[in-house]
Amino acid sequence: MNSAIIVAAGSGTRFGTDKAKQFLEIFGKPVVIYALERFEFCPQIDEIILVLPTAEIKNFQKITEKYNLKKLFKIIAGGATRADSVWNGLNAIDAETAEIVAVHDGARPLVASEEITKTIEKARETGAACLVANVTDTIKEIKDGKIVQTIDRTKLRRALTPQCFRYKILKRAFEENKFDDAVTDESFLAEKLGIEVSIVEGSGRNIKITHEEDLSLAESLLSRC
Amino acid sequence: MNSAIIVAAGSGTRFGTDKAKQFLEIFGKPVVIYALERFEFCPQIDEIILVLPTAEIKNFQKITEKYNLKKLFKIIAGGATRADSVWNGLNAIDAETAEIVAVHDGARPLVASEEITKTIEKARETGAACLVANVTDTIKEIKDGKIVQTIDRTKLRRALTPQCFRYKILKRAFEENKFDDAVTDESFLAEKLGIEVSIVEGSGRNIKITHEEDLSLAESLLSRC
Repeated sequence: MNSAIIVAAGSGTRFGTDKAKQFLEIFGKPVVIYALERFEFCPQIDEIILVLPTAEIKNFQKITEKYNLKKLFKIIAGGATRADSVWNGLNAIDAETAEIVAVHDGARPLVASEEITKTIEKARETGAACLVANVTDTIKEIKDGKIVQTIDRTKLRRALTPQCFRYKILKRAFEENKFDDAVTDESFLAEKLGIEVSIVEGSGRNIKITHEEDLSLAESLLSRC
Repeated sequence: MNSAIIVAAGSGTRFGTDKAKQFLEIFGKPVVIYALERFEFCPQIDEIILVLPTAEIKNFQKITEKYNLKKLFKIIAGGATRADSVWNGLNAIDAETAEIVAVHDGARPLVASEEITKTIEKARETGAACLVANVTDTIKEIKDGKIVQTIDRTKLRRALTPQCFRYKILKRAFEENKFDDAVTDESFLAEKLGIEVSIVEGSGRNIKITHEEDLSLAESLLSRC
């Protein structure tokens, strides 16, 4: 079994709206539904675990019913941090049958089906794989208000999601490191164990809805699909 | 005299449209006009040099007349690369009276007036200053298709524009290094000379119009001004 954990447990405090970003709508459909559908329609995915803020579970259960998501296996409550939420999702997976786990941001509605497939396949081959995109900005290393150097951006990538792992690897990575404050993605936990994480080159279209204006960008990208 | 060089000499090949990105319109006004107006209304700027593709100069001269840009001193032709274009702009400045030169991307319509002011003031104080924004993505260093490490993003910044320099520093930086292929910004040229470039923390709103969908994002940001 390959499982997807869709993490949508954030409180949306950066938005300044009542609704968390993953529940805001694009063309009348919540952002997280787009993300769920991408995994629903991916043949390599067998089950989906959706992680939500506790207060949203009841209401969102009704919403998901409208969209006929057959692979949606469980909706569970998130924790205080992203790592806690993924950990909760991981514990909802049956260890006996688990193969690959794909962790995806609920606020990334634009991931392509082939990007999910490629990342799962790479993780099956190597144990751990992270979808990435090119860095288009010029990146500076800074110290004390000055530029130390311009970093060669051909050696850099932006980590996107999904990030895919053999179940046992991800479980161990969490058990050993999940309380590290610097955790911004799951790949980092695996890197800390000394596990080699492969990259899968993806598209910059796979944006994360973080600010309100990102909704306009997502609309524009979706209407160009 | 403080001079602004607005670089809008790109051919726009990344867009797949006939028009280069800097001439596309937001609410009926070309992107580069927004950029020009930001400098027109900045009290610290005395003159503006606009660098355009040769083929656009005649047509665009008519367009700029509509917008009453009193500080627009010269419209000159760009070169084959960004560095060539900035170099042409630099040579249009009177060395006798030049103090600070602010180089700005014509495809960045959203820079704030106070960001321009702060960057000019910092350059006057230290010789060289670069407007930057936080890195919001998780950044990985990669090698041979694998992740080497997650870079601490608190030590990284994205280089924006304007980038401001004492005239003599920028002139020397260009004279010594302008033929380096790795030049993606003017700060890099100064860094190569061993000159300390100060950073000025700016906003991620100051986006560069690179892809067609960035126009929607810019519209959304501009309507929120």
